[in-house]
Amino acid sequence: MDARALRLAVREGRHRGLTTGHAAGFVQCNLAVVPQDFAPDFIAFCQANALACPVVGVSRAGETAWPALGADIDIRTDLPGYVVHRAGHAVRQVDSLLDIWRDDLVAVALGCWFSMEDALAAAGVRLRHVELGIQGPLFKTVLPAAPAGRFAGPLVVSMRPFATAEVATVRAVTARFPRVHGAPLYEGTGAAAKLGIRDIAKPDYGEPIPLAAGDVPLYWGCGLTAVAALEQAGLPLFITHAPGKMLVTDLANASLLEY
Amino acid sequence: MDARALRLAVREGRHRGLTTGHAAGFVQCNLAVVPQDFAPDFIAFCQANALACPVVGVSRAGETAWPALGADIDIRTDLPGYVVHRAGHAVRQVDSLLDIWRDDLVAVALGCWFSMEDALAAAGVRLRHVELGIQGPLFKTVLPAAPAGRFAGPLVVSMRPFATAEVATVRAVTARFPRVHGAPLYEGTGAAAKLGIRDIAKPDYGEPIPLAAGDVPLYWGCGLTAVAALEQAGLPLFITHAPGKMLVTDLANASLLEY
Repeated sequence: MDARALRLAVREGRHRGLTTGHAAGFVQCNLAVVPQDFAPDFIAFCQANALACPVVGVSRAGETAWPALGADIDIRTDLPGYVVHRAGHAVRQVDSLLDIWRDDLVAVALGCWFSMEDALAAAGVRLRHVELGIQGPLFKTVLPAAPAGRFAGPLVVSMRPFATAEVATVRAVTARFPRVHGAPLYEGTGAAAKLGIRDIAKPDYGEPIPLAAGDVPLYWGCGLTAVAALEQAGLPLFITHAPGKMLVTDLANASLLEY
Repeated sequence: MDARALRLAVREGRHRGLTTGHAAGFVQCNLAVVPQDFAPDFIAFCQANALACPVVGVSRAGETAWPALGADIDIRTDLPGYVVHRAGHAVRQVDSLLDIWRDDLVAVALGCWFSMEDALAAAGVRLRHVELGIQGPLFKTVLPAAPAGRFAGPLVVSMRPFATAEVATVRAVTARFPRVHGAPLYEGTGAAAKLGIRDIAKPDYGEPIPLAAGDVPLYWGCGLTAVAALEQAGLPLFITHAPGKMLVTDLANASLLEY
């Protein structure tokens, strides 16, 4: 199924599970929907933290189509799950925004690490988290994200382990994907201390991945940095995608590879 | 002199030389001014080539102030030199845009590698091109930039050599500066062949830097990628900063360092 067919299946209720693992080759994005009043500050926050919160697209206020990201997208119905947050707290998960959509809402699509996986696999890199069928561990760090307007919060990072011999390839491939987190931010066993991670086996989100002998842990900025800032700002309303139920775009993963 | 004082000195004709090397610590940007009709395509081109053409700011059409980048900026007068291009060709260098400014012009500020130099020097990295007092070599590559709308062209890269022992530090520091080119795109002596560079001693722009024994050449995307695309598109009018005569902003270089 291509991206458009998958979105249609979601919209019509024929696909209610995760989007990850479906519509192979197409860019899937994190979604954050905020009232227009907060949009400029939020976009500025994402831009100031481009390694963690890379903006792939911004919708027009109130419009439910998003032609830059895909033909016939309906922001309200094309993700299999959304999380509605009020006063900074997740209050419920819904499978459509039809009932709560407002004309002042702006959607922001943030790039996701998954879009680099095809290129890494093609370069022969072993992806431990894919073999395990998990997303991998995510950590709230002690490093602050760059604040912007009303938004501030901690940097959230993902960790993925790679064999020492593959680290140079991982670095070279990911460096050319700046819109889906780019090159690793931190490397090696010493990084956990810098980031304030007490126990690499106890992530704040996601699942742990045990390090094998000779593994190097690599850390990337993570889009949850944006969610942490939205929570901390206590917005009256914001909406995110539900975990693994993402905005599937018509962009090819390969289109995010620069040069 | 701080950034604002330098801009004022330029505006009043008291400073007519290069901006590089002045207003230490403040972000200096490449400037590209295009008619509004071309602005969406041009911004899309820069965003699709974010490693080479990182957008630090976009002015409002026709407005000569740019509050997001600095107090009291006047786009028409605050750079010591501008290059006016017509039909895709540089036709003259001017020291003010007062006579040719139009209400449909949009200015785009692109980040520059120089903003990483303070952090690299603070990390103890020896900057050969700074010691030599030159910008270093820039090459038109055989790799195409990602096209967008009416814009396409070659990737242009900068090369800077570093001692082998310092490469890991350079990589770690620059990776956290995504808005001023970030981590190196290509590394090592094999890169020239991939990029189609026949003779590293004969750059297309700038000055060569001889490699010392044990030096590793590192290559970054360069903002001239945007100029090459503007030239190739044959715009009736576009304007760039003159070499070394840049837009000096009130942003601190350190503000571009993520985490």
